[in-house]
Amino acid sequence: MIRVAILGATGYTARELIGLLLRHPEVEICALTTRQETQPHVAEVHPSYRGQLDLVLENLTPAQVAQRADCVFGCLPHAASAAVVRQLLAVGCRVVDFSADYRLNDPAVYAEWYGAEHPDPARMADTPYGLPELYRDAITDAQLVANPGCYPTASILALAPLLQAGVIEPAGIVIDAKSGITGAGRNPKSHLHFPEANENLTPYNVGGHRHTPEINQELSQWAAGTADVVFTPHLIPMDRGELVTAYANLAGDPTTDDLRQVLTRFYQTEPFVRVTENLPGTKQVAHTNYCDLTVRRVRDKAVVVSVLDNLIKGASGAAVQNFNLMYGFPETTALFY
Amino acid sequence: MIRVAILGATGYTARELIGLLLRHPEVEICALTTRQETQPHVAEVHPSYRGQLDLVLENLTPAQVAQRADCVFGCLPHAASAAVVRQLLAVGCRVVDFSADYRLNDPAVYAEWYGAEHPDPARMADTPYGLPELYRDAITDAQLVANPGCYPTASILALAPLLQAGVIEPAGIVIDAKSGITGAGRNPKSHLHFPEANENLTPYNVGGHRHTPEINQELSQWAAGTADVVFTPHLIPMDRGELVTAYANLAGDPTTDDLRQVLTRFYQTEPFVRVTENLPGTKQVAHTNYCDLTVRRVRDKAVVVSVLDNLIKGASGAAVQNFNLMYGFPETTALFY
Amino acid sequence: MIRVAILGATGYTARELIGLLLRHPEVEICALTTRQETQPHVAEVHPSYRGQLDLVLENLTPAQVAQRADCVFGCLPHAASAAVVRQLLAVGCRVVDFSADYRLNDPAVYAEWYGAEHPDPARMADTPYGLPELYRDAITDAQLVANPGCYPTASILALAPLLQAGVIEPAGIVIDAKSGITGAGRNPKSHLHFPEANENLTPYNVGGHRHTPEINQELSQWAAGTADVVFTPHLIPMDRGELVTAYANLAGDPTTDDLRQVLTRFYQTEPFVRVTENLPGTKQVAHTNYCDLTVRRVRDKAVVVSVLDNLIKGASGAAVQNFNLMYGFPETTALFY
Amino acid sequence: MIRVAILGATGYTARELIGLLLRHPEVEICALTTRQETQPHVAEVHPSYRGQLDLVLENLTPAQVAQRADCVFGCLPHAASAAVVRQLLAVGCRVVDFSADYRLNDPAVYAEWYGAEHPDPARMADTPYGLPELYRDAITDAQLVANPGCYPTASILALAPLLQAGVIEPAGIVIDAKSGITGAGRNPKSHLHFPEANENLTPYNVGGHRHTPEINQELSQWAAGTADVVFTPHLIPMDRGELVTAYANLAGDPTTDDLRQVLTRFYQTEPFVRVTENLPGTKQVAHTNYCDLTVRRVRDKAVVVSVLDNLIKGASGAAVQNFNLMYGFPETTALFY
Repeated sequence: MIRVAILGATGYTARELIGLLLRHPEVEICALTTRQETQPHVAEVHPSYRGQLDLVLENLTPAQVAQRADCVFGCLPHAASAAVVRQLLAVGCRVVDFSADYRLNDPAVYAEWYGAEHPDPARMADTPYGLPELYRDAITDAQLVANPGCYPTASILALAPLLQAGVIEPAGIVIDAKSGITGAGRNPKSHLHFPEANENLTPYNVGGHRHTPEINQELSQWAAGTADVVFTPHLIPMDRGELVTAYANLAGDPTTDDLRQVLTRFYQTEPFVRVTENLPGTKQVAHTNYCDLTVRRVRDKAVVVSVLDNLIKGASGAAVQNFNLMYGFPETTALFY
Repeated sequence: MIRVAILGATGYTARELIGLLLRHPEVEICALTTRQETQPHVAEVHPSYRGQLDLVLENLTPAQVAQRADCVFGCLPHAASAAVVRQLLAVGCRVVDFSADYRLNDPAVYAEWYGAEHPDPARMADTPYGLPELYRDAITDAQLVANPGCYPTASILALAPLLQAGVIEPAGIVIDAKSGITGAGRNPKSHLHFPEANENLTPYNVGGHRHTPEINQELSQWAAGTADVVFTPHLIPMDRGELVTAYANLAGDPTTDDLRQVLTRFYQTEPFVRVTENLPGTKQVAHTNYCDLTVRRVRDKAVVVSVLDNLIKGASGAAVQNFNLMYGFPETTALFY
Repeated sequence: MIRVAILGATGYTARELIGLLLRHPEVEICALTTRQETQPHVAEVHPSYRGQLDLVLENLTPAQVAQRADCVFGCLPHAASAAVVRQLLAVGCRVVDFSADYRLNDPAVYAEWYGAEHPDPARMADTPYGLPELYRDAITDAQLVANPGCYPTASILALAPLLQAGVIEPAGIVIDAKSGITGAGRNPKSHLHFPEANENLTPYNVGGHRHTPEINQELSQWAAGTADVVFTPHLIPMDRGELVTAYANLAGDPTTDDLRQVLTRFYQTEPFVRVTENLPGTKQVAHTNYCDLTVRRVRDKAVVVSVLDNLIKGASGAAVQNFNLMYGFPETTALFY
Repeated sequence: MIRVAILGATGYTARELIGLLLRHPEVEICALTTRQETQPHVAEVHPSYRGQLDLVLENLTPAQVAQRADCVFGCLPHAASAAVVRQLLAVGCRVVDFSADYRLNDPAVYAEWYGAEHPDPARMADTPYGLPELYRDAITDAQLVANPGCYPTASILALAPLLQAGVIEPAGIVIDAKSGITGAGRNPKSHLHFPEANENLTPYNVGGHRHTPEINQELSQWAAGTADVVFTPHLIPMDRGELVTAYANLAGDPTTDDLRQVLTRFYQTEPFVRVTENLPGTKQVAHTNYCDLTVRRVRDKAVVVSVLDNLIKGASGAAVQNFNLMYGFPETTALFY
């Protein structure tokens, strides 16, 4: 039985993570933290768990966390996260970090996009990027795994195999992404107030979203060249679900079937990636750890569509998948219906 | 041309009111106020009006408002409203007040439900309650009109004719009300954050909603006895629209047809109340000033259903209807498609 | 390992049932039926299960079903269901029937509300009503269980303990119910077309909904008198979730605390009923088998609020709970996160 | 007073058109047609108009329509429309055609995308494309105007000025479009059933949507070269609103400011196109005839965002704007709040 703690347990990713871990036969949830002064019971913060988990959210130091937990899931903001993760690693905890802090390899790129020096630059290059479909070996037995962003997961799973196969060009990729509103977090804001966000559709952070360097870094590893994507996210009036429509220039003259076969072969043994002929919708993967993919050739471009649940495969499901690999449990434990 | 001002112009009722007044051929909008320190242009606060109205929201004193406007629409909170309205009336402005301050007749009832002494008790009993279908004569030529609450409008229009006709009992009435989320205002709050309110349905203020005394006061005027309703509002995951399902004990043995005929006769010349045989839905009155009504006898009770748009017939449309009566314009001006 | 079949496997309750049974360690899904001519793979009908269940939906006779399955979950329409259930029982299958056919005890009441003679009247009175919180002993070891309707579950769990304790009157109960749109089934209809149902709120079947006699039958069993409720359902623009607001005349002079304590005591050992002080919303029970309840005294009435997921505790979760009791598995198997 | 008829009056575009025309001081609605056998009153088909318009929908021949109306708005499907429009023109009616029949200039392109010979090919090249911002002169005094598709309106208004100014390349344009579900029409279909479409997000007709040739035809007129766009539409779980995110390769080295100034200058006197610095959302143009636009340079591409209400500026509002031009009324009549 692995004792786990969740840092920053009030948000939506923590809520989903608790739900998944409650199903996990080898896990005991031992600590939930918050930086809020009040120490609410989990049943107040996440009323759906009333009667299933009897824990109070506490403002614990890393040392206190380490006393209670073998493995820590960090749902803290960037920068704040690395400061804590360093200390947890030093005393022997294993960590799955949801923040962006250990996803990028290059401190200069981090400083450019996050506007501050990285608190723990020495670890950046060696920390595995927690996308099991691409980096399973590095994740297995790792002490620290950087859980990927939701948009990067959908984008990289869609494009990496096609880049590796040389059927699309790394230059000129456009990623038009759409996400349900849980992706914007749990803090109430004017533009996320129900009567503002409902029946509305808006782009945001055009050209400036912080998931961009993460996507470029990973795609460039699989391409014969450097990716420098144009990335545009949009807010969709629904709770959860994310859809990426990626447009890439073709290399050579592949047909739709050629393109789809590249994806099908790449993922043929993967439990959580399904390549379909039909155009997928987000609802077919809601509340699951699946990423569903398809591709079409349209004129001189490949149009790749991928869908996932931003809170599961885009966050907490991926984290449990990484945890299973780290501890040698079957990779799908707690992740199927 | 009547020069009008809107106090508290950042909220949803003010937004709808601006839209209606922009269509009104006899109105010029001359001032919009806010108590915020920044003085934003209306196009920043309500971007749909960009290019149609070139005004800045200002923090104006009542005296400054009175210099610019003949008629003032007050969208201020209770208590704050009466303090300003007094001053506006003193210098000769006419006022349609959206707050609850002049709806109740009895200062003691106000103090009980609003937890404070009324700032202008002398005017309470004489201010007409701005429901034209019931009090048209009193509204015409009034200097001050108390614009009704949205739930009271839907509830009173549904029940007053049946009480007057003596076919239902005033005792034991249950009003189960449901409203879209614009009814809760524009300030972001945790429970109104999109991912909390969407796909959710909640009752609130059970037994304690401040519209209750307003409903009782008005229903009692039309009944041979005192109404003391049980009122339960619910939040519905949609922008606008309100539905009241009212349950009353029958007096005598009226059929469904008898009950419906009472409503049909009462409203036969009304432009904005439609009595239907079908069960109405809120969408058929969205963005209109209609209140649609029907009634069924079920066992020993009358079940009355009324729908309206909480921002139009439940607020800003009613205000324009009152304004038209006050100034002798055709009552429907600016209120039809 | 129990071999199970699901009859009528294309709808929403069947979809949820498959999801729950896939998690059940003692169940193998062996057959899915449809009366459609095409025999689609489950992955076409319910794309979220692609890769998890490799079965084709077939048009099977009861005899064919009985060859493959020990236990049958029937998701067929009323009347059609009883015709099949009879045959399954005759050859030894055990059955959880989702239809209304075996819920009512009295063939005359069935004929009145369903407009036809019951095809199997002899079994009506003896078939246990599948609400484990009220009838656990009768369900255990039963060959056939009548799975309750969603509205009756929410209504009966709310009111039966208060009637039993004698703190409310059985006469004059009003049940104002609200349901998400999955409750209306999967067949597309004009009024359920997205742009008609979205941003809309409508009552339906006022006074005539077929769940009414079921509610009356069960409430009358727990009351010192006959219940004859006024029941009004409404469609809410959301996928799933159901909220019942029930209004009952008080017997004696109980306080809110008295009323809540009756509920708390009644359900104190129940795994799936939670009595709260807060007013519950549907979202806190979405995708769970919980029914959350609270009660308030308002003037001379008890206002009881109950919420559940219409597809889980209101249908498929309850069915699995009944199944677990019938076969002696822990009652919560496959029903917690 | 112009007497108008609406053909195919049961759908959403007809519903919006009726609402706009009811406000128009120079219009009398004289006939509404349907091919359904029953002849329902408009209040049954569009209950919001009960009491405002007393007309029955009739199955009228073109000759009967021509007897009642000076101007006809055709909301019929493609092919069916041209067959009727020919006859109306022959007897002197003026027509605004909502179908695609007279939008394309080349019969061969029509045959390729619509799978049939055009019924009236001689008129194709000469019929003005009803986008007043681009073709105002041709629309004025025309007997027949082809009302544009919703996606083409949003796409062409976004891109034509930039192509004309030579700051973007016509080759390699990607248009990622998103629409509310009224855009899919009023006929109930499985994938538009509320519980399927709600909380879902899906692409459709990738590479094959029939608005593609219309976009290419018009963009090519404004470009120094031929446009051949990759067009991907998506269904968004909301009633109305459309957002186009267009990606074009830059020509030269324009900045974001340069790009925006091109748009600002092009539309500086237009009443219904607003160029903003902020990223627009669909809600700010809902229920209006506005198209709001902005542009950003991101790396080597221009990202242009345009929003409109698919039923107003994307259909019925544009039709009234065209009608106003055709008859010499002020272009904004009936189109502002």
